[in-house]
Amino acid sequence: MKCSVNKAIEILEQTPKTLKSFLGKLSDEWIYCNESDDTWSAFDIVGHLIHGEKTDWMTRIHLILDASEDNTFKPFDRFAQFEASKGKTLNQLLNEFEALRIQNLKKLKALNLTQDQLSLKGTHPELGKVTLSQLLATWVTHDLGHVAQISRVMAKQYKTEVGPWINYISILND
Amino acid sequence: MKCSVNKAIEILEQTPKTLKSFLGKLSDEWIYCNESDDTWSAFDIVGHLIHGEKTDWMTRIHLILDASEDNTFKPFDRFAQFEASKGKTLNQLLNEFEALRIQNLKKLKALNLTQDQLSLKGTHPELGKVTLSQLLATWVTHDLGHVAQISRVMAKQYKTEVGPWINYISILND
Repeated sequence: MKCSVNKAIEILEQTPKTLKSFLGKLSDEWIYCNESDDTWSAFDIVGHLIHGEKTDWMTRIHLILDASEDNTFKPFDRFAQFEASKGKTLNQLLNEFEALRIQNLKKLKALNLTQDQLSLKGTHPELGKVTLSQLLATWVTHDLGHVAQISRVMAKQYKTEVGPWINYISILND
Repeated sequence: MKCSVNKAIEILEQTPKTLKSFLGKLSDEWIYCNESDDTWSAFDIVGHLIHGEKTDWMTRIHLILDASEDNTFKPFDRFAQFEASKGKTLNQLLNEFEALRIQNLKKLKALNLTQDQLSLKGTHPELGKVTLSQLLATWVTHDLGHVAQISRVMAKQYKTEVGPWINYISILND
């Protein structure tokens, strides 16, 4: 499928609501469990998504569009959520993520990006030249990847509990 | 985490709402896409979940609890949805799944299962003896596995669109 602004927005719009439905009523055992030391819980992942809304996606889109300055992206801090989420509840984080995403999609829509603009390039600190279209597609797949990760983290809590069914539930063996 | 009825119900209760938030407003390109020939789309997966509600989980729980009859499970038809979902919209399927799940969880709660009952066994046609607790844990991980699968199927549509970011988005390489 070719990445288009409208098709990308369909996915980006649903993520906050999906995460609220998924996680909003779960008890701490589900919210804070992870896969092993140094892996992330659902709580950590929602914090990470918030940090992306604040510093990554729209910031980088604006940087690509603004030809007047150096368009090298700042490196993304993959660990910012551990400090930023401290003392907050998951429902606070889910609301914060939703508010930021709504704001960002409003800005994205207002840009009315053209095909030419989607081909403009920025410089990723590790990957080199990337297009605005690739950034948008990455935003979409990043959301979907983390929804899948949350599912996997929670499923794995029952890895031994399923007994012989472990061979049928492939997510437990990922 | 040890499987408990209450903790399992937390996950089982959210799945229909999560899928409605996730998929309810997406266009056909997202709903019907798959990973390759003979793999499933989001539409196929929701149909598969419906078939599980109708023929698998609660049916097997009742079979385990009813000591008066042979407790060998009927094999689960993994392809039933291709016929059963024909002519329906995804939103019809999402509503059907939700109604069936609500009914089934009402029945599950009404059983007030004891620890002794969770240890009772049935016979899986391929896996042999399995406990009611293992069946319950499998129901939970089966839901979570399919939520992750839906995420992966949709993400993969942008596998080439993300350009060099492919190395950072692990779901695209699953």
